[in-house]
Amino acid sequence: MKLVKAEIIAIGDELLYGQIMDTNSHWISQQLDLKGVKVVRKTTVGDNREDILKAFSEAEKRADLVLITGGLGPTQDDLTKPLLAEYFNCPVIEVPDAVKAITEFFKRRGREMTPLNVLQGHLPSCCEYVPNPVGTAPGMWFDQNETYWMSMPGVPHEMKRLMNDFVLPKLPSLFELPVIYHKVIKTAGIGESWLADLIADWENALPEHIRLAYLPSLGHVKLRLTGFDKDLSQIQKEVENQIQLVLPKIEKYVYGFNEETLETAIGKLLKKAGKTLALAESCSGGYISHLVTSIPGCSDYFQGSLVPYHNQYKRDILGVKEDTLANFGAVSEETVHEMAKGIRSLFHADFGLASSGIAGPDGGTDEKPVGTVWIACAGDGFSEAKKLQLTQDRLLNIQLTGVAVLNLLRVCISQYNK
Amino acid sequence: MKLVKAEIIAIGDELLYGQIMDTNSHWISQQLDLKGVKVVRKTTVGDNREDILKAFSEAEKRADLVLITGGLGPTQDDLTKPLLAEYFNCPVIEVPDAVKAITEFFKRRGREMTPLNVLQGHLPSCCEYVPNPVGTAPGMWFDQNETYWMSMPGVPHEMKRLMNDFVLPKLPSLFELPVIYHKVIKTAGIGESWLADLIADWENALPEHIRLAYLPSLGHVKLRLTGFDKDLSQIQKEVENQIQLVLPKIEKYVYGFNEETLETAIGKLLKKAGKTLALAESCSGGYISHLVTSIPGCSDYFQGSLVPYHNQYKRDILGVKEDTLANFGAVSEETVHEMAKGIRSLFHADFGLASSGIAGPDGGTDEKPVGTVWIACAGDGFSEAKKLQLTQDRLLNIQLTGVAVLNLLRVCISQYNK
Repeated sequence: MKLVKAEIIAIGDELLYGQIMDTNSHWISQQLDLKGVKVVRKTTVGDNREDILKAFSEAEKRADLVLITGGLGPTQDDLTKPLLAEYFNCPVIEVPDAVKAITEFFKRRGREMTPLNVLQGHLPSCCEYVPNPVGTAPGMWFDQNETYWMSMPGVPHEMKRLMNDFVLPKLPSLFELPVIYHKVIKTAGIGESWLADLIADWENALPEHIRLAYLPSLGHVKLRLTGFDKDLSQIQKEVENQIQLVLPKIEKYVYGFNEETLETAIGKLLKKAGKTLALAESCSGGYISHLVTSIPGCSDYFQGSLVPYHNQYKRDILGVKEDTLANFGAVSEETVHEMAKGIRSLFHADFGLASSGIAGPDGGTDEKPVGTVWIACAGDGFSEAKKLQLTQDRLLNIQLTGVAVLNLLRVCISQYNK
Repeated sequence: MKLVKAEIIAIGDELLYGQIMDTNSHWISQQLDLKGVKVVRKTTVGDNREDILKAFSEAEKRADLVLITGGLGPTQDDLTKPLLAEYFNCPVIEVPDAVKAITEFFKRRGREMTPLNVLQGHLPSCCEYVPNPVGTAPGMWFDQNETYWMSMPGVPHEMKRLMNDFVLPKLPSLFELPVIYHKVIKTAGIGESWLADLIADWENALPEHIRLAYLPSLGHVKLRLTGFDKDLSQIQKEVENQIQLVLPKIEKYVYGFNEETLETAIGKLLKKAGKTLALAESCSGGYISHLVTSIPGCSDYFQGSLVPYHNQYKRDILGVKEDTLANFGAVSEETVHEMAKGIRSLFHADFGLASSGIAGPDGGTDEKPVGTVWIACAGDGFSEAKKLQLTQDRLLNIQLTGVAVLNLLRVCISQYNK
């Protein structure tokens, strides 16, 4: 089977001058990779005639599919459309359906339409008009010079809509794509190299048509299995079998699969168990509450949280004992146990979580340097605490504490809620 | 003056397949733009001999300066170094200083050095060795074919170190760069087009050698003034004069300049006034506390916060009246006033902030649709509330609420703390 090669061209001075980060090309790469299309190059050029035409002709030599974003606004800076017409040598003509769609777009929003907006409905005669239901610049599809071309707006949600509605579903009819099945195992609480050690035998025994990738990110490691075959149900079965083989080796670190996050996984566990949660955050300063409350429907299990940023509030609102604070300090095993119990009782919650540490850059001592963090999870008849030794970086310490606390909760739910 | 043209080449399969987002090229763009170097193209290619050599030869035709990131690891996938040697036709030789630096790097970290790591100290004979104090892959500087070339590791903090220590300081000795002075005015609480209306007369009267850019981001608009001249002190004076002219028109929206954020600006205001802060976050769920506590030294003014995610906690812990909740609901002007007063008193703070709203996607009604948010700021003898009508998107609503609440605090500090 011949490999399908794609090239991505992003157009716009604002991308070259660093005013806007090009997140489009990255997202398109990911989507094409999932379909088995190989991206061979990404190019960014400015709003300049020669540079854009050069990018078109270079891409045509290399790629079967060229995806272009940007340069489709209504003003004279926006060159993509006239240059595509010039490159393919066909005139720009009025496309009544496109003009109508733009007119309706403005009507729906109750906004005034300018003559320049009407011109956005004029397109090169050699392209297929691709409606853009969420913006004013239409998509344009070309089948020219033995290459397929798609031009899309640079606004990310408009581009994604055109990719999802039109380009991605169209690919199987144009190319013979490999049959691919992906599955991602999500883990937390273990580093990449330790994880690799645990599963080395299994990894070495993987058949050639199933590939493994380690994708580490802040406090998490994702394992992506990719299977290639002629037959989808066959390769799906094989990948799932491999996952069943590896899971027992790493079970306690796995919180979910594919798009699952630690926050959504915990939400599911709590909902299933019919249990509730409250948080006492000192060094993490509200970050963990933000993670938990980013998930729609969290009010089913999340009761609330407290950020007691000084000892007096740990004492007066949470009920941490004066003696505990005086003898062991705010950053101690004893204090986080009492914080977790206190928050549980304040919010009448089944599980109480607590963090207390030295996020930095100041406040470290020889005994408790910057990055020292204690976390705890208290529940009915138990309280588990853990010490973390993190980094010199304040924001990183906050984020890593977040992952560790939520992972501790996950482990405690599994352990104490059987 | 001839414009200096630069091209950025990022190398690595992981960038093409969307496993890693290339943030390096964006950062490099920004730095070069600040120096008056024009980036004419960004290219991403995979770990493939022909593609990399092609990218080199194309870049050489277009650019005076080529900045390359990635492909410098110790394994066979990493092709940048041998291909640069091949392209410039010079052998790879041992560079004793480089080998020594790598050896010491491993020694400092207490890690084992492999033979592959030693080879990272072997470099093309035609390059200048550029020490990398934070990693094992050295930088390489070439003055070849009437173009300057710099090859750097793809790890962002290593690349930034080499750019900051070596490349950026070197530019003025290589090129005749324009003298540029930038200043950014940071605003919140006003949209881009309203801001543009307010300053239209001033903007139209700007001299040609001072340019204005609007840089909008979530809830903020930055105004960047860029002045070009022969003489730095002269252009600096002119830009600062223009800022003094425009400030009175937009003063109430301006929270700072250049790198200042709303969080740091508020921290400064509170420290200066010797005042403290507490937060009651319902719909924003801890996000604002996280913003405030991300700033080092915030314990000087931040007392703490509460996320009372259900009405009973607004009542029992914050002291919001049962009647208020029953008559007006949790998302109401009356409730946020009581929340702001309640949190102020719970934490003995000078300023109390509150948010309550419907973040979505569920929970909206005809009267209070998703995106309805009330915020308040209470202090000694006052309480100010404001209604926001935001979006359908939960995370966006949380973030926009954060900006609005902190901006309300900023306005209140200025207004009530004279």
